[in-house]
Amino acid sequence: MQPRLQLITLGVPDLAQARAFYVDRLGWHPTFDVPGVITFIQIGPGLLLGLFGADDLDADIGQPGHGVGPAPLTLAQVLQTEDEVVATLAAAEAAGATILKPAQYADFGGFHGYFADPSGFRWEIATNPGWSEAPDGTVSLGPIGG
Amino acid sequence: MQPRLQLITLGVPDLAQARAFYVDRLGWHPTFDVPGVITFIQIGPGLLLGLFGADDLDADIGQPGHGVGPAPLTLAQVLQTEDEVVATLAAAEAAGATILKPAQYADFGGFHGYFADPSGFRWEIATNPGWSEAPDGTVSLGPIGG
Repeated sequence: MQPRLQLITLGVPDLAQARAFYVDRLGWHPTFDVPGVITFIQIGPGLLLGLFGADDLDADIGQPGHGVGPAPLTLAQVLQTEDEVVATLAAAEAAGATILKPAQYADFGGFHGYFADPSGFRWEIATNPGWSEAPDGTVSLGPIGG
Repeated sequence: MQPRLQLITLGVPDLAQARAFYVDRLGWHPTFDVPGVITFIQIGPGLLLGLFGADDLDADIGQPGHGVGPAPLTLAQVLQTEDEVVATLAAAEAAGATILKPAQYADFGGFHGYFADPSGFRWEIATNPGWSEAPDGTVSLGPIGG
């Protein structure tokens, strides 16, 4: 199995609410969109974010009732400046996100904060002094990680 | 807020078990690795997968006890052929994954299956006739979605 991700699909309790946050209020442009059914948004080279009803996702897998509990993971953006971190958290909050951790210096050496989207999925917005990306997309992460 | 994801960090109940699956058994090469603390693996251009203890992740966010319940999402690989789907599911199972849905034709027009990694995170392995990716990484998804 190759180390490759093309799609991350969030199973959300309220698809209209999730779509309103990402598409209508953050202004992210759908790559493929069937309102009320499924929405895909490009969030990186060769990478889509899917928004899909949690029940529909569980049904597709054959795990009915798997549930929509708190997701034990984070999605993260790595930005260049502390000002961008502050502005991005503010933009998310203005769009309806809940700030979980205001922008602050982090143990790993960066500057970060967290918000939850309206479905409860947690995003980290951070600078990371150890992060660099080559032109071909290869990431290096120095001893300052995070 | 730009539509961009650089990092997806799975909060796992047993970091050693999660690392053993992805690194030791699937053979994915860590970009940055502090065994017992955190592991990052490149899974796309400019994109890392993080493995981190769920309790440590919750502590970093300031949400102690957020929990390690079933994750309401899927990670997905889009492959070119049905044989690759079958082989990838078999490789994951041999590495310790649990097959949730054996390889089969899907409603959206592709051929797919699902497995759960040892932490319970669900991966879809699929072909998708509607998926195409331009040289710059822009994805198009035709009316056959999924």
